[in-house]
Amino acid sequence: MPQPSTEEEERAETGLFGPSAVTAYLEQVVEQLRDERGGAPSSSIPALAEADPERFGVVIATADGHVYEAGSTRDEFSLQSISKAFTYALALHDLGAEAVHAKMDVEPSGDAYNEISLQPGSGRPANPMINAGAIASTWLVPDSDRDLRRDRIREAYSRCAGRDLAISPEVLAQEHDAGDRNRALGYLLASAGIIEGDPTQALEDYFAQCSVLVTCRDLALMGATLANAGTNPLTGEEVFDAGTVSRVLSVMSSCGMYDDAGEWMVRVGLPAKSGVGGGIIAVLPGELAVATFSPALDRHGNSVRGVLACERLSQDLDLHFTHTARVARSTVRASYPIDQSPSLVRRNADAEAVLAEHGTDAVVVELQGDLLFTGTETAIRTVRDVAYDASYVVVDLRRVDVIADYAMPMLARTRQELHAAGRTVVVVAGNPDFGRSFRGDPPLEVFPSRAAAIKWVEDALLEEHGGPECTPSRVKPVESELFSRLDPADARALRVRTVERSWAAGENILRAGQNFAGIHLIVTGDVSMSLRTPSGERVELQVLGPGMSFGELALGTGDKQHATLSAVTDVTARVLSPQTLAELEQEDPGLGLRLWKALARDGFERADQQWRDAAVHASASDW
Amino acid sequence: MPQPSTEEEERAETGLFGPSAVTAYLEQVVEQLRDERGGAPSSSIPALAEADPERFGVVIATADGHVYEAGSTRDEFSLQSISKAFTYALALHDLGAEAVHAKMDVEPSGDAYNEISLQPGSGRPANPMINAGAIASTWLVPDSDRDLRRDRIREAYSRCAGRDLAISPEVLAQEHDAGDRNRALGYLLASAGIIEGDPTQALEDYFAQCSVLVTCRDLALMGATLANAGTNPLTGEEVFDAGTVSRVLSVMSSCGMYDDAGEWMVRVGLPAKSGVGGGIIAVLPGELAVATFSPALDRHGNSVRGVLACERLSQDLDLHFTHTARVARSTVRASYPIDQSPSLVRRNADAEAVLAEHGTDAVVVELQGDLLFTGTETAIRTVRDVAYDASYVVVDLRRVDVIADYAMPMLARTRQELHAAGRTVVVVAGNPDFGRSFRGDPPLEVFPSRAAAIKWVEDALLEEHGGPECTPSRVKPVESELFSRLDPADARALRVRTVERSWAAGENILRAGQNFAGIHLIVTGDVSMSLRTPSGERVELQVLGPGMSFGELALGTGDKQHATLSAVTDVTARVLSPQTLAELEQEDPGLGLRLWKALARDGFERADQQWRDAAVHASASDW
Repeated sequence: MPQPSTEEEERAETGLFGPSAVTAYLEQVVEQLRDERGGAPSSSIPALAEADPERFGVVIATADGHVYEAGSTRDEFSLQSISKAFTYALALHDLGAEAVHAKMDVEPSGDAYNEISLQPGSGRPANPMINAGAIASTWLVPDSDRDLRRDRIREAYSRCAGRDLAISPEVLAQEHDAGDRNRALGYLLASAGIIEGDPTQALEDYFAQCSVLVTCRDLALMGATLANAGTNPLTGEEVFDAGTVSRVLSVMSSCGMYDDAGEWMVRVGLPAKSGVGGGIIAVLPGELAVATFSPALDRHGNSVRGVLACERLSQDLDLHFTHTARVARSTVRASYPIDQSPSLVRRNADAEAVLAEHGTDAVVVELQGDLLFTGTETAIRTVRDVAYDASYVVVDLRRVDVIADYAMPMLARTRQELHAAGRTVVVVAGNPDFGRSFRGDPPLEVFPSRAAAIKWVEDALLEEHGGPECTPSRVKPVESELFSRLDPADARALRVRTVERSWAAGENILRAGQNFAGIHLIVTGDVSMSLRTPSGERVELQVLGPGMSFGELALGTGDKQHATLSAVTDVTARVLSPQTLAELEQEDPGLGLRLWKALARDGFERADQQWRDAAVHASASDW
Repeated sequence: MPQPSTEEEERAETGLFGPSAVTAYLEQVVEQLRDERGGAPSSSIPALAEADPERFGVVIATADGHVYEAGSTRDEFSLQSISKAFTYALALHDLGAEAVHAKMDVEPSGDAYNEISLQPGSGRPANPMINAGAIASTWLVPDSDRDLRRDRIREAYSRCAGRDLAISPEVLAQEHDAGDRNRALGYLLASAGIIEGDPTQALEDYFAQCSVLVTCRDLALMGATLANAGTNPLTGEEVFDAGTVSRVLSVMSSCGMYDDAGEWMVRVGLPAKSGVGGGIIAVLPGELAVATFSPALDRHGNSVRGVLACERLSQDLDLHFTHTARVARSTVRASYPIDQSPSLVRRNADAEAVLAEHGTDAVVVELQGDLLFTGTETAIRTVRDVAYDASYVVVDLRRVDVIADYAMPMLARTRQELHAAGRTVVVVAGNPDFGRSFRGDPPLEVFPSRAAAIKWVEDALLEEHGGPECTPSRVKPVESELFSRLDPADARALRVRTVERSWAAGENILRAGQNFAGIHLIVTGDVSMSLRTPSGERVELQVLGPGMSFGELALGTGDKQHATLSAVTDVTARVLSPQTLAELEQEDPGLGLRLWKALARDGFERADQQWRDAAVHASASDW
């Protein structure tokens, strides 16, 4: 299987742009640390002793599968002890944490990695990252004629790397020849009853897993699979479950770097594992993995340049686990009274006055990102703060990616408690079933759009604070917004020239693209105005009620209708047809002039209203 | 000093809302774990042995200082070994890491906390969380007649807790009486040259620091100070620097929970420290601290209920360090071609056509949150992706809170590299000096608003793809947008009735609140239209150029001007005054009717244009 290549890599081949600034940074690190010539390759087997100490590579792979590399990142070398982390993961995945924990502890030992001893109290290996624990992990992976343990292990590694990895016969033969100290450990484990039966096959399989050949790039992708909670981000395959990965990373954090683990956590602060083949893998959970390769080792058995490169990256890029970003700060995307973001319903003057007075009694809180604990705490605190001074809170969850399971009851409880204090919380959510996750009376109101939620809240405010004149069910044409601009005699004269038309709920009244079809004065019912955007999406812009007019906008656009108007409820309107308008100019130019003047003023009023809305929006969205 | 109280606590006293859902959750945890009666209080001194084993409290304090508590959170008990973490921090803060590291290692020992031994190789205590290392830390804190070491230590603890903590004379006397094993350690340290001189005073001060009385709430705030990188979030005081805190948390992660540290990291996954007084403090860096208190201890010396409560919280609330949120996902707030968010400059038909054709050649990328490494990597990747298909990229940084130091050269390099490939990157930033941080030629263009950046890009596109007709410097009134709606004879007749007026750059032309002052046709120059929002903020809405008109919007709003119009450059306009309009109706009603018809159509066209803009915005912002 070839090394997988990413979209960036393919794009890079076009030569349009140079390497990413991230790659350039890594190249600089490799260049600057290349002169560090301390340490020496492992002398344990010839294949390691003969490694070219000049080779040096550094790779970053992100948890979403983007790879940046510099130096010798495509040369193969043997995994050695790095295998311990992945075989431990496989044993946990196959048998569960309890069965594995029965065979080994997870305590840092303070001893050398190949110490021939078991824990004083429990008689178990101290942890899976020392040889005794690692051999026990290997033994735990099921072995059968049909499913050879060493194949199973090699395949798990391959799925983490995203390509088929091979066992080096040469390295394996040398490991076998030099394996007596490990054989001693194997028999010690057998004598203690940790390994049940003959340890020989488990030892051979342990030698084989140490002999798997990888590149520095492979290591980074294996690390990225851990960073991505066990799923290879390039292939999308789940190799290990998240619980297994959490346990493995925890053990790596205290036991991964031989007897230098404490110092490593101080200086680098990432769970890591190194091998005497010269590789190191370090993981920032959820974000990325770093892999390094250089064969010369320090006295602990860790790659000299590798440790320096990891320290350098951790410092330069602030990867230390104690230097995390504050996700909570950005949980609340925005918070504003609804009068800064009114619904699409055009209201009459009485209703506008009520909403202007009481609009701050309802507040929108837009949340974003993941509602994990800190985000949830911030969200709850913000909603409670807001509800302290407002009766209605609209919580917009559409930009929330994940709500943790434990957050739901906390959110439900908060809403229930605010309800008891006389507050109403409603939710905007992409998923209409969202409300079912909330227990409690009354059922949570969930809306598909912010506009719909705000309309509901506006209606509630109008019912509470306004009179029936705020939402009239019938407005006579002479009292319509347009004709009110004329003196009553003119209005009556024009009324006579209109004809009545009716539409059933759901019917289209005017379609985009049709010719100007007259000025429509709504007598009863609600009409929705919508537009298709250049990208083809239909957007509802406004809902018009009795007393309002539509159809006249086509007069501004070459008599072509741009918007679509459709009946939300059954609708009755009086229509001043294009013919009537033309006749009027001939038959009564004075009235015609006064009508056009009213139309012009109506157009300018709407433009002005829209400018004012735009100003509030612009100010709210920090344009 | 009384316990500090937070705004929430004061508000809670009004009784309007009950406890927060977070508090309710903690109460549930305390209730459910109260029946765990395993273990026994420490028998080391009478004050501990006599502690009421029923007492049990749990507190969460967030890194921004919000406190949630349940159970016995205001009872005092002695700090005991939890003091080790804070004295180690003080020694690091006073002397620096190098001087402290010369006296002790940071490796987990695998031994009991009171083991009388030093590290085989170095002769130093294994780490500062075992007694030998802790006594060395205490000795390291400077002591003088004017500044007693024990006061200095107690004061540091107090600043972390946000209130004045006291040493219990009773506990101190008992610690003194029971201190022989620690004395043995003190003399061992003196014999090894770790402590220089007589260890007696350091031992007494160590007994004193173990005897400091705290509540569970104090512990949580001390933890929150560590979670907040060393600054007490309630008082705002920096007690320790961030580097010190990073080191202390790292050591806590591998050595904080006696010989149960490995298991703790697997099960809880938070740096922590426990004390035989029954307290535990656990820290999620950047987010929060958990503190628990219950006197009965397990065989490791950790509070039984405390460990269970921390495990429970870590599991329930996903606090484990391997389960972090993915901050990177939300770095890119939005990305869209500029034609979905045009500038405020009203363009003529020729310019509109050019921008409609080439508008997708320029893309806005809005970033948010902190640009730490993963965010920076995502930002760079997104900008490169976008620039692959577009010539101009507008990067809006105004919602970015922090740009890491190391990110700046990467961002600068990316921009330089895109420049070399013929792409132009411009930036919107709150701070106008931002551009200076970017090295390289040509200087980075930085704009204070997205509108200004987009105008600059539109102008560049028009210069590249349009002719001079796109941005005419002079338009005769008869060719203006409004008069073009009339036949040439009508236009000429109206032209005769206009008067010329001029304004210098910066002058106000029309003020909000003044009466309708006529229809203004711009001949030369640019005019800015702005509005004051209900909250008093002035928002620029549009820039108008030659051939466009203004002033007529007042006709829609009772002849009162709502917007303010001011001259951006020197401006000349022809004005059709209110008197002239009135005379026209009398003197030539036919022409009057045709003018009002043109005005009405102009008004409707503008309203229609605004609806279409609103539709695109609504769709882009997922309304």
